[in-house]
Amino acid sequence: MKRIKAIIQYDGSLYHGFQIQHNAITIQEIIQDCIYSLIGEKVSLLCSGRTDAGVHALGQVIVFDTGSSIPPEKWKFALNSTLPEDIRILNSCEAASDFHPRYHAILKHYRYLLYQQADGQVFYRKYAYCNEETYHIDKMQQACAIIEGRHNFKAFCASGSSVTDYVREVKACTITSQGPFLQLDIKADGFLYNMVRIVMGTLLEVGRGKYAPRHLQEILSGQDRSIAGPTAPPQGLYLVSVDYT
Amino acid sequence: MKRIKAIIQYDGSLYHGFQIQHNAITIQEIIQDCIYSLIGEKVSLLCSGRTDAGVHALGQVIVFDTGSSIPPEKWKFALNSTLPEDIRILNSCEAASDFHPRYHAILKHYRYLLYQQADGQVFYRKYAYCNEETYHIDKMQQACAIIEGRHNFKAFCASGSSVTDYVREVKACTITSQGPFLQLDIKADGFLYNMVRIVMGTLLEVGRGKYAPRHLQEILSGQDRSIAGPTAPPQGLYLVSVDYT
Repeated sequence: MKRIKAIIQYDGSLYHGFQIQHNAITIQEIIQDCIYSLIGEKVSLLCSGRTDAGVHALGQVIVFDTGSSIPPEKWKFALNSTLPEDIRILNSCEAASDFHPRYHAILKHYRYLLYQQADGQVFYRKYAYCNEETYHIDKMQQACAIIEGRHNFKAFCASGSSVTDYVREVKACTITSQGPFLQLDIKADGFLYNMVRIVMGTLLEVGRGKYAPRHLQEILSGQDRSIAGPTAPPQGLYLVSVDYT
Repeated sequence: MKRIKAIIQYDGSLYHGFQIQHNAITIQEIIQDCIYSLIGEKVSLLCSGRTDAGVHALGQVIVFDTGSSIPPEKWKFALNSTLPEDIRILNSCEAASDFHPRYHAILKHYRYLLYQQADGQVFYRKYAYCNEETYHIDKMQQACAIIEGRHNFKAFCASGSSVTDYVREVKACTITSQGPFLQLDIKADGFLYNMVRIVMGTLLEVGRGKYAPRHLQEILSGQDRSIAGPTAPPQGLYLVSVDYT
Protein backbone atom coordinates (compact mmCIF):
# COMPACT_ATOMS: atom_id res chain seq x y z
CA MET A 1 0.00 0.00 0.00
CA LYS A 2 1.11 3.52 -0.77
CA ARG A 3 -0.21 6.76 0.72
CA ILE A 4 -0.88 9.24 -2.09
CA LYS A 5 -0.93 12.94 -1.26
CA ALA A 6 -2.57 15.37 -3.69
CA ILE A 7 -3.09 19.10 -3.80
CA ILE A 8 -6.50 19.88 -5.21
CA GLN A 9 -8.44 22.90 -6.34
CA TYR A 10 -12.21 23.16 -6.55
CA ASP A 11 -15.09 25.43 -7.29
CA GLY A 12 -17.34 24.57 -4.34
CA SER A 13 -20.48 26.17 -5.83
CA LEU A 14 -22.26 22.95 -6.74
CA TYR A 15 -21.22 20.84 -3.75
CA HIS A 16 -22.49 20.38 -0.23
CA GLY A 17 -18.97 20.81 1.11
CA PHE A 18 -16.00 18.48 1.19
CA GLN A 19 -17.06 15.77 3.62
CA ILE A 20 -19.15 12.85 2.46
CA GLN A 21 -22.78 12.83 3.62
CA HIS A 22 -26.04 11.11 2.80
CA ASN A 23 -28.37 12.59 0.18
CA ALA A 24 -26.04 15.37 -0.96
CA ILE A 25 -23.16 15.51 -3.42
CA THR A 26 -19.81 16.27 -1.85
CA ILE A 27 -16.29 16.67 -3.16
CA GLN A 28 -15.05 13.67 -1.15
CA GLU A 29 -17.70 11.41 -2.69
CA ILE A 30 -16.93 12.58 -6.23
CA ILE A 31 -13.19 11.89 -5.82
CA GLN A 32 -13.70 8.53 -4.08
CA ASP A 33 -16.11 7.44 -6.82
CA CYS A 34 -13.61 8.56 -9.42
CA ILE A 35 -10.83 6.46 -7.81
CA TYR A 36 -13.21 3.50 -7.65
CA SER A 37 -14.04 3.86 -11.35
CA LEU A 38 -10.32 3.96 -12.18
CA ILE A 39 -9.00 1.05 -10.09
CA GLY A 40 -11.98 -0.62 -8.41
CA GLU A 41 -10.69 0.21 -4.92
CA LYS A 42 -12.89 1.82 -2.26
CA VAL A 43 -10.64 4.37 -0.59
CA SER A 44 -11.43 6.81 2.19
CA LEU A 45 -9.97 10.28 1.73
CA LEU A 46 -8.46 12.37 4.51
CA CYS A 47 -8.28 16.14 4.00
CA SER A 48 -6.52 19.09 5.59
CA GLY A 49 -9.76 20.84 6.48
CA ARG A 50 -13.39 20.22 5.60
CA THR A 51 -14.84 23.06 3.61
CA ASP A 52 -18.55 23.92 3.83
CA ALA A 53 -21.10 24.09 1.01
CA GLY A 54 -20.18 26.82 -1.48
CA VAL A 55 -16.64 27.27 -0.10
CA HIS A 56 -13.76 26.97 -2.59
CA ALA A 57 -10.22 25.59 -2.43
CA LEU A 58 -7.09 26.75 -4.20
CA GLY A 59 -4.88 24.23 -2.40
CA GLN A 60 -6.76 21.63 -0.36
CA VAL A 61 -4.54 18.68 0.62
CA ILE A 62 -5.93 15.14 0.51
CA VAL A 63 -4.46 11.67 1.03
CA PHE A 64 -5.62 8.14 0.33
CA ASP A 65 -4.06 4.68 0.58
CA THR A 66 -4.00 2.44 -2.45
CA GLY A 67 -2.50 -0.84 -3.60
CA SER A 68 -2.63 0.36 -7.22
CA SER A 69 0.50 0.32 -9.35
CA ILE A 70 -0.27 3.80 -10.76
CA PRO A 71 2.91 5.82 -10.04
CA PRO A 72 2.17 8.48 -7.38
CA GLU A 73 2.89 11.47 -9.66
CA LYS A 74 0.62 10.00 -12.38
CA TRP A 75 -2.46 10.12 -10.14
CA LYS A 76 -2.79 13.77 -11.12
CA PHE A 77 -3.40 12.84 -14.75
CA ALA A 78 -5.46 9.73 -14.02
CA LEU A 79 -7.86 11.65 -11.77
CA ASN A 80 -8.08 14.77 -13.94
CA SER A 81 -9.09 12.62 -16.89
CA THR A 82 -12.24 11.48 -15.08
CA LEU A 83 -13.05 14.18 -12.49
CA PRO A 84 -15.60 16.89 -13.37
CA GLU A 85 -14.08 20.20 -14.51
CA ASP A 86 -14.82 21.94 -11.22
CA ILE A 87 -12.41 19.68 -9.30
CA ARG A 88 -8.76 19.53 -10.43
CA ILE A 89 -5.66 17.80 -9.07
CA LEU A 90 -2.72 20.24 -9.19
CA ASN A 91 -0.15 17.60 -8.24
CA SER A 92 0.21 14.20 -6.62
CA CYS A 93 3.09 12.42 -4.88
CA GLU A 94 3.76 9.67 -2.37
CA ALA A 95 3.58 10.61 1.33
CA ALA A 96 4.82 8.81 4.46
CA SER A 97 2.36 6.11 5.51
CA ASP A 98 1.57 8.01 8.72
CA PHE A 99 1.20 11.45 7.10
CA HIS A 100 -2.08 13.10 8.08
CA PRO A 101 -3.10 16.24 6.16
CA ARG A 102 -4.99 17.74 9.10
CA TYR A 103 -3.02 16.68 12.18
CA HIS A 104 0.37 17.40 10.63
CA ALA A 105 -0.52 20.84 9.25
CA ILE A 106 1.48 23.62 10.88
CA LEU A 107 -0.04 26.57 9.02
CA LYS A 108 -3.22 27.09 7.02
CA HIS A 109 -4.02 30.04 4.82
CA TYR A 110 -7.59 31.11 4.13
CA ARG A 111 -8.75 34.02 2.00
CA TYR A 112 -12.08 35.82 2.01
CA LEU A 113 -13.03 37.87 -1.03
CA LEU A 114 -15.54 40.72 -1.24
CA TYR A 115 -16.66 42.24 -4.54
CA GLN A 116 -17.88 45.79 -4.14
CA GLN A 117 -19.51 47.03 -7.33
CA ALA A 118 -22.73 46.25 -9.19
CA ASP A 119 -20.97 45.98 -12.56
CA GLY A 120 -19.58 42.44 -12.81
CA GLN A 121 -21.58 40.77 -10.04
CA VAL A 122 -23.06 38.29 -12.52
CA PHE A 123 -19.55 36.82 -12.85
CA TYR A 124 -18.45 37.01 -9.20
CA ARG A 125 -21.67 36.10 -7.35
CA LYS A 126 -20.45 32.54 -6.68
CA TYR A 127 -16.79 33.48 -6.13
CA ALA A 128 -17.02 36.46 -3.78
CA TYR A 129 -19.44 38.08 -1.35
CA CYS A 130 -20.99 40.77 -3.56
CA ASN A 131 -21.82 43.82 -1.53
CA GLU A 132 -21.73 47.46 -2.55
CA GLU A 133 -21.35 49.00 0.91
CA THR A 134 -18.43 51.32 1.66
CA TYR A 135 -16.05 50.23 4.41
CA HIS A 136 -13.41 52.04 6.46
CA ILE A 137 -10.46 49.89 5.46
CA ASP A 138 -8.04 51.58 7.87
CA LYS A 139 -10.29 50.60 10.79
CA MET A 140 -10.52 47.02 9.52
CA GLN A 141 -6.71 46.93 9.39
CA GLN A 142 -6.49 48.08 12.99
CA ALA A 143 -8.90 45.32 13.98
CA CYS A 144 -6.85 42.76 12.04
CA ALA A 145 -3.78 43.70 14.10
CA ILE A 146 -5.70 42.80 17.28
CA ILE A 147 -6.68 39.42 15.85
CA GLU A 148 -3.04 38.52 15.15
CA GLY A 149 -1.35 36.51 17.91
CA ARG A 150 -2.26 33.68 20.26
CA HIS A 151 -5.80 34.05 21.58
CA ASN A 152 -8.84 32.10 22.71
CA PHE A 153 -11.09 32.38 19.62
CA LYS A 154 -14.25 30.92 21.19
CA ALA A 155 -16.22 34.06 20.21
CA PHE A 156 -15.31 33.29 16.58
CA CYS A 157 -16.41 29.63 16.63
CA ALA A 158 -19.85 28.56 15.42
CA SER A 159 -21.94 27.22 18.27
CA GLY A 160 -22.36 23.46 18.27
CA SER A 161 -18.67 22.78 17.66
CA SER A 162 -17.30 19.85 19.63
CA VAL A 163 -13.80 21.26 20.23
CA THR A 164 -12.65 22.02 23.78
CA ASP A 165 -9.48 23.99 23.07
CA TYR A 166 -10.30 27.32 21.46
CA VAL A 167 -6.77 28.70 21.53
CA ARG A 168 -5.23 29.31 18.11
CA GLU A 169 -2.30 31.37 16.93
CA VAL A 170 -3.06 33.74 14.04
CA LYS A 171 0.29 34.40 12.36
CA ALA A 172 -1.01 36.97 9.89
CA CYS A 173 -4.33 38.76 9.35
CA THR A 174 -4.41 41.39 6.63
CA ILE A 175 -7.00 43.31 4.63
CA THR A 176 -6.10 44.55 1.18
CA SER A 177 -8.12 46.52 -1.32
CA GLN A 178 -7.58 46.32 -5.06
CA GLY A 179 -10.05 47.82 -7.48
CA PRO A 180 -13.51 46.46 -6.66
CA PHE A 181 -12.08 43.70 -4.41
CA LEU A 182 -11.56 43.72 -0.68
CA GLN A 183 -9.59 40.70 0.49
CA LEU A 184 -8.89 39.19 3.89
CA ASP A 185 -5.89 36.86 4.17
CA ILE A 186 -5.55 34.97 7.41
CA LYS A 187 -2.91 32.43 8.36
CA ALA A 188 -3.01 30.39 11.55
CA ASP A 189 -1.83 27.14 13.09
CA GLY A 190 -5.45 26.01 13.01
CA PHE A 191 -8.98 27.33 12.65
CA LEU A 192 -12.22 26.76 14.53
CA TYR A 193 -15.51 25.96 12.80
CA ASN A 194 -16.62 28.99 10.71
CA MET A 195 -13.80 31.07 12.25
CA VAL A 196 -12.76 32.88 9.06
CA ARG A 197 -16.35 33.71 8.11
CA ILE A 198 -17.10 35.05 11.62
CA VAL A 199 -13.83 37.05 11.63
CA MET A 200 -14.83 38.53 8.25
CA GLY A 201 -18.39 39.24 9.39
CA THR A 202 -16.97 41.02 12.46
CA LEU A 203 -14.38 42.98 10.46
CA LEU A 204 -17.15 44.19 8.15
CA GLU A 205 -19.05 45.56 11.18
CA VAL A 206 -15.86 47.43 12.11
CA GLY A 207 -15.55 48.67 8.52
CA ARG A 208 -19.14 49.95 8.67
CA GLY A 209 -18.35 51.83 11.88
CA LYS A 210 -20.64 49.72 14.05
CA TYR A 211 -17.75 48.70 16.37
CA ALA A 212 -14.50 50.55 17.06
CA PRO A 213 -11.45 48.43 16.13
CA ARG A 214 -10.45 48.10 19.82
CA HIS A 215 -13.79 46.36 20.46
CA LEU A 216 -12.12 43.27 18.99
CA GLN A 217 -10.24 42.94 22.28
CA GLU A 218 -13.54 42.78 24.19
CA ILE A 219 -14.93 40.21 21.76
CA LEU A 220 -11.82 38.02 22.18
CA SER A 221 -11.87 38.27 25.98
CA GLY A 222 -15.66 37.80 26.13
CA GLN A 223 -15.35 34.31 24.55
CA ASP A 224 -19.00 34.42 23.53
CA ARG A 225 -20.17 33.85 19.95
CA SER A 226 -23.12 36.20 20.41
CA ILE A 227 -20.92 39.29 20.82
CA ALA A 228 -18.95 38.76 17.58
CA GLY A 229 -20.36 39.80 14.18
CA PRO A 230 -22.45 37.70 11.79
CA THR A 231 -21.05 34.79 9.74
CA ALA A 232 -20.09 36.07 6.27
CA PRO A 233 -21.57 33.97 3.42
CA PRO A 234 -19.65 30.92 2.14
CA GLN A 235 -19.01 31.88 -1.49
CA GLY A 236 -16.28 34.39 -0.58
CA LEU A 237 -14.15 31.82 1.27
CA TYR A 238 -11.11 30.02 -0.15
CA LEU A 239 -8.77 27.50 1.46
CA VAL A 240 -5.57 28.81 -0.14
CA SER A 241 -2.79 26.50 1.10
CA VAL A 242 -1.60 24.27 3.91
CA ASP A 243 1.98 24.04 5.15
CA TYR A 244 3.69 21.05 6.75
CA THR A 245 7.09 20.72 8.42
CA MET B 1 -46.59 53.40 -24.88
CA LYS B 2 -42.98 54.07 -23.95
CA ARG B 3 -39.87 52.43 -25.38
CA ILE B 4 -37.58 51.39 -22.51
CA LYS B 5 -33.88 50.92 -23.22
CA ALA B 6 -31.77 48.93 -20.77
CA ILE B 7 -28.12 47.97 -20.57
CA ILE B 8 -27.82 44.44 -19.26
CA GLN B 9 -25.07 42.11 -18.11
CA TYR B 10 -25.29 38.34 -18.04
CA ASP B 11 -23.39 35.17 -17.34
CA GLY B 12 -24.39 33.13 -20.39
CA SER B 13 -23.26 29.78 -18.97
CA LEU B 14 -26.69 28.38 -18.24
CA TYR B 15 -28.55 29.77 -21.25
CA HIS B 16 -29.03 28.69 -24.84
CA GLY B 17 -28.12 32.17 -26.02
CA PHE B 18 -30.09 35.39 -26.07
CA GLN B 19 -32.81 34.75 -28.63
CA ILE B 20 -36.01 32.97 -27.65
CA GLN B 21 -36.41 29.42 -28.95
CA HIS B 22 -38.51 26.34 -28.31
CA ASN B 23 -37.40 23.77 -25.74
CA ALA B 24 -34.42 25.72 -24.40
CA ILE B 25 -34.05 28.48 -21.83
CA THR B 26 -32.84 31.77 -23.25
CA ILE B 27 -32.09 35.18 -21.81
CA GLN B 28 -34.83 36.82 -23.85
CA GLU B 29 -37.45 34.41 -22.49
CA ILE B 30 -36.33 34.93 -18.89
CA ILE B 31 -36.55 38.73 -19.18
CA GLN B 32 -39.89 38.68 -21.05
CA ASP B 33 -41.36 36.32 -18.43
CA CYS B 34 -40.04 38.59 -15.72
CA ILE B 35 -41.73 41.64 -17.29
CA TYR B 36 -44.96 39.65 -17.64
CA SER B 37 -44.83 38.66 -13.98
CA LEU B 38 -44.32 42.31 -12.99
CA ILE B 39 -46.98 44.04 -15.12
CA GLY B 40 -48.92 41.34 -16.96
CA GLU B 41 -47.81 42.64 -20.37
CA LYS B 42 -46.39 40.35 -23.06
CA VAL B 43 -43.51 42.33 -24.55
CA SER B 44 -41.09 41.35 -27.28
CA LEU B 45 -37.48 42.37 -26.65
CA LEU B 46 -35.13 43.71 -29.29
CA CYS B 47 -31.38 43.42 -28.65
CA SER B 48 -28.18 44.88 -30.08
CA GLY B 49 -26.79 41.48 -31.02
CA ARG B 50 -27.89 37.92 -30.33
CA THR B 51 -25.31 36.08 -28.28
CA ASP B 52 -24.89 32.31 -28.61
CA ALA B 53 -25.13 29.66 -25.88
CA GLY B 54 -22.40 30.15 -23.28
CA VAL B 55 -21.48 33.67 -24.51
CA HIS B 56 -21.53 36.48 -21.93
CA ALA B 57 -22.48 40.15 -22.01
CA LEU B 58 -21.02 43.07 -20.08
CA GLY B 59 -23.19 45.61 -21.87
CA GLN B 60 -25.93 44.14 -24.06
CA VAL B 61 -28.55 46.72 -25.05
CA ILE B 62 -32.23 45.77 -25.11
CA VAL B 63 -35.46 47.66 -25.69
CA PHE B 64 -39.13 46.90 -25.16
CA ASP B 65 -42.36 48.88 -25.45
CA THR B 66 -44.71 49.09 -22.52
CA GLY B 67 -47.83 50.92 -21.41
CA SER B 68 -46.80 50.52 -17.77
CA SER B 69 -46.54 53.57 -15.50
CA ILE B 70 -43.24 52.35 -14.01
CA PRO B 71 -40.82 55.29 -14.55
CA PRO B 72 -38.16 54.33 -17.15
CA GLU B 73 -35.20 54.62 -14.74
CA LYS B 74 -37.04 52.43 -12.16
CA TRP B 75 -37.20 49.44 -14.51
CA LYS B 76 -33.63 48.63 -13.43
CA PHE B 77 -34.77 48.03 -9.85
CA ALA B 78 -38.08 46.38 -10.78
CA LEU B 79 -36.38 43.84 -13.05
CA ASN B 80 -33.38 43.19 -10.78
CA SER B 81 -35.76 42.35 -7.94
CA THR B 82 -37.19 39.41 -9.91
CA LEU B 83 -34.51 38.37 -12.43
CA PRO B 84 -32.15 35.49 -11.56
CA GLU B 85 -28.73 36.56 -10.25
CA ASP B 86 -26.97 35.74 -13.52
CA ILE B 87 -28.87 38.47 -15.43
CA ARG B 88 -28.62 42.06 -14.15
CA ILE B 89 -29.92 45.39 -15.46
CA LEU B 90 -27.16 48.02 -15.15
CA ASN B 91 -29.44 50.91 -16.07
CA SER B 92 -32.70 51.73 -17.78
CA CYS B 93 -34.07 54.86 -19.46
CA GLU B 94 -36.62 55.93 -22.04
CA ALA B 95 -35.59 55.78 -25.70
CA ALA B 96 -37.08 57.32 -28.84
CA SER B 97 -40.01 55.24 -30.08
CA ASP B 98 -38.12 54.33 -33.26
CA PHE B 99 -34.80 53.51 -31.55
CA HIS B 100 -33.52 50.09 -32.60
CA PRO B 101 -30.58 48.63 -30.61
CA ARG B 102 -29.22 46.68 -33.58
CA TYR B 103 -29.91 48.87 -36.61
CA HIS B 104 -28.85 52.09 -34.90
CA ALA B 105 -25.61 50.74 -33.45
CA ILE B 106 -22.55 52.45 -34.92
CA LEU B 107 -19.87 50.51 -33.02
CA LYS B 108 -19.81 47.24 -31.14
CA HIS B 109 -17.05 46.02 -28.87
CA TYR B 110 -16.45 42.32 -28.27
CA ARG B 111 -13.77 40.75 -26.08
CA TYR B 112 -12.39 37.22 -26.16
CA LEU B 113 -10.58 35.94 -23.08
CA LEU B 114 -8.06 33.10 -22.89
CA TYR B 115 -6.80 31.69 -19.57
CA GLN B 116 -3.42 30.07 -19.90
CA GLN B 117 -2.51 28.20 -16.74
CA ALA B 118 -3.74 25.02 -15.04
CA ASP B 119 -3.90 26.69 -11.62
CA GLY B 120 -7.26 28.49 -11.42
CA GLN B 121 -9.06 26.80 -14.33
CA VAL B 122 -11.79 25.55 -11.98
CA PHE B 123 -12.83 29.21 -11.57
CA TYR B 124 -12.36 30.39 -15.17
CA ARG B 125 -13.59 27.37 -17.18
CA LYS B 126 -16.96 29.04 -17.90
CA TYR B 127 -15.58 32.58 -18.29
CA ALA B 128 -12.56 32.05 -20.55
CA TYR B 129 -11.15 29.53 -23.01
CA CYS B 130 -8.74 27.60 -20.77
CA ASN B 131 -5.74 26.47 -22.73
CA GLU B 132 -2.14 26.09 -21.58
CA GLU B 133 -0.46 26.41 -24.97
CA THR B 134 2.21 29.05 -25.53
CA TYR B 135 1.53 31.63 -28.23
CA HIS B 136 3.72 34.10 -30.11
CA ILE B 137 1.89 37.24 -29.07
CA ASP B 138 3.95 39.52 -31.34
CA LYS B 139 2.82 37.50 -34.37
CA MET B 140 -0.80 37.66 -33.24
CA GLN B 141 -0.45 41.45 -32.95
CA GLN B 142 0.87 41.66 -36.51
CA ALA B 143 -2.13 39.62 -37.69
CA CYS B 144 -4.50 41.92 -35.75
CA ALA B 145 -3.12 44.92 -37.66
CA ILE B 146 -4.12 43.22 -40.93
CA ILE B 147 -7.65 42.62 -39.66
CA GLU B 148 -8.14 46.30 -38.87
CA GLY B 149 -9.80 48.30 -41.63
CA ARG B 150 -12.65 47.83 -44.09
CA HIS B 151 -12.66 44.31 -45.53
CA ASN B 152 -14.91 41.58 -46.84
CA PHE B 153 -15.02 39.21 -43.83
CA LYS B 154 -16.79 36.31 -45.57
CA ALA B 155 -13.95 33.93 -44.56
CA PHE B 156 -14.75 34.83 -40.92
CA CYS B 157 -18.48 34.17 -41.14
CA ALA B 158 -20.01 30.83 -40.10
CA SER B 159 -21.49 29.02 -43.07
CA GLY B 160 -25.28 29.08 -43.19
CA SER B 161 -25.52 32.80 -42.48
CA SER B 162 -28.19 34.58 -44.51
CA VAL B 163 -26.34 37.88 -44.92
CA THR B 164 -25.32 39.05 -48.37
CA ASP B 165 -23.02 41.95 -47.50
CA TYR B 166 -19.86 40.67 -45.81
CA VAL B 167 -18.06 43.99 -45.70
CA ARG B 168 -17.41 45.34 -42.20
CA GLU B 169 -15.07 47.95 -40.85
CA VAL B 170 -12.91 46.83 -37.92
CA LYS B 171 -11.93 50.02 -36.10
CA ALA B 172 -9.64 48.33 -33.58
CA CYS B 173 -8.27 44.82 -33.11
CA THR B 174 -5.77 44.32 -30.30
CA ILE B 175 -4.26 41.46 -28.34
CA THR B 176 -3.04 42.08 -24.81
CA SER B 177 -1.43 39.75 -22.33
CA GLN B 178 -1.69 40.20 -18.58
CA GLY B 179 -0.58 37.47 -16.21
CA PRO B 180 -2.34 34.23 -17.21
CA PHE B 181 -4.80 36.08 -19.47
CA LEU B 182 -4.58 36.72 -23.20
CA GLN B 183 -7.30 39.08 -24.38
CA LEU B 184 -8.59 40.07 -27.81
CA ASP B 185 -10.53 43.33 -28.05
CA ILE B 186 -12.25 43.98 -31.35
CA LYS B 187 -14.42 46.94 -32.26
CA ALA B 188 -16.32 47.20 -35.53
CA ASP B 189 -19.34 48.81 -37.13
CA GLY B 190 -20.90 45.35 -37.23
CA PHE B 191 -20.04 41.67 -36.96
CA LEU B 192 -20.91 38.60 -38.99
CA TYR B 193 -22.17 35.38 -37.42
CA ASN B 194 -19.37 33.84 -35.27
CA MET B 195 -16.93 36.43 -36.63
CA VAL B 196 -15.12 37.14 -33.34
CA ARG B 197 -14.75 33.45 -32.49
CA ILE B 198 -13.39 32.67 -35.98
CA VAL B 199 -11.02 35.66 -35.81
CA MET B 200 -9.79 34.39 -32.42
CA GLY B 201 -9.45 30.79 -33.67
CA THR B 202 -7.42 32.10 -36.62
CA LEU B 203 -5.24 34.37 -34.47
CA LEU B 204 -4.46 31.39 -32.21
CA GLU B 205 -3.22 29.45 -35.25
CA VAL B 206 -0.95 32.41 -36.01
CA GLY B 207 0.19 32.44 -32.37
CA ARG B 208 1.04 28.74 -32.62
CA GLY B 209 3.12 29.41 -35.74
CA LYS B 210 0.83 27.46 -38.05
CA TYR B 211 0.25 30.51 -40.28
CA ALA B 212 2.48 33.53 -40.78
CA PRO B 213 0.71 36.80 -39.83
CA ARG B 214 0.65 37.93 -43.48
CA HIS B 215 -1.45 34.84 -44.30
CA LEU B 216 -4.37 36.84 -42.87
CA GLN B 217 -4.35 38.86 -46.09
CA GLU B 218 -4.84 35.68 -48.13
CA ILE B 219 -7.64 34.52 -45.85
CA LEU B 220 -9.41 37.88 -46.23
CA SER B 221 -9.04 37.92 -50.02
CA GLY B 222 -9.96 34.20 -50.32
CA GLN B 223 -13.43 34.91 -48.85
CA ASP B 224 -13.79 31.23 -47.97
CA ARG B 225 -14.64 30.04 -44.44
CA SER B 226 -12.63 26.82 -44.95
CA ILE B 227 -9.29 28.65 -45.17
CA ALA B 228 -9.70 30.56 -41.88
CA GLY B 229 -8.96 28.93 -38.50
CA PRO B 230 -11.40 27.03 -36.26
CA THR B 231 -14.18 28.71 -34.27
CA ALA B 232 -12.93 29.39 -30.72
CA PRO B 233 -15.29 28.08 -28.00
CA PRO B 234 -18.14 30.33 -26.75
CA GLN B 235 -17.26 30.71 -23.06
CA GLY B 236 -14.39 33.13 -23.78
CA LEU B 237 -16.60 35.62 -25.64
CA TYR B 238 -18.10 38.81 -24.15
CA LEU B 239 -20.26 41.51 -25.77
CA VAL B 240 -18.63 44.46 -24.00
CA SER B 241 -20.54 47.53 -25.21
CA VAL B 242 -22.52 49.07 -28.04
CA ASP B 243 -22.28 52.69 -29.14
CA TYR B 244 -25.00 54.81 -30.77
CA THR B 245 -24.85 58.28 -32.32
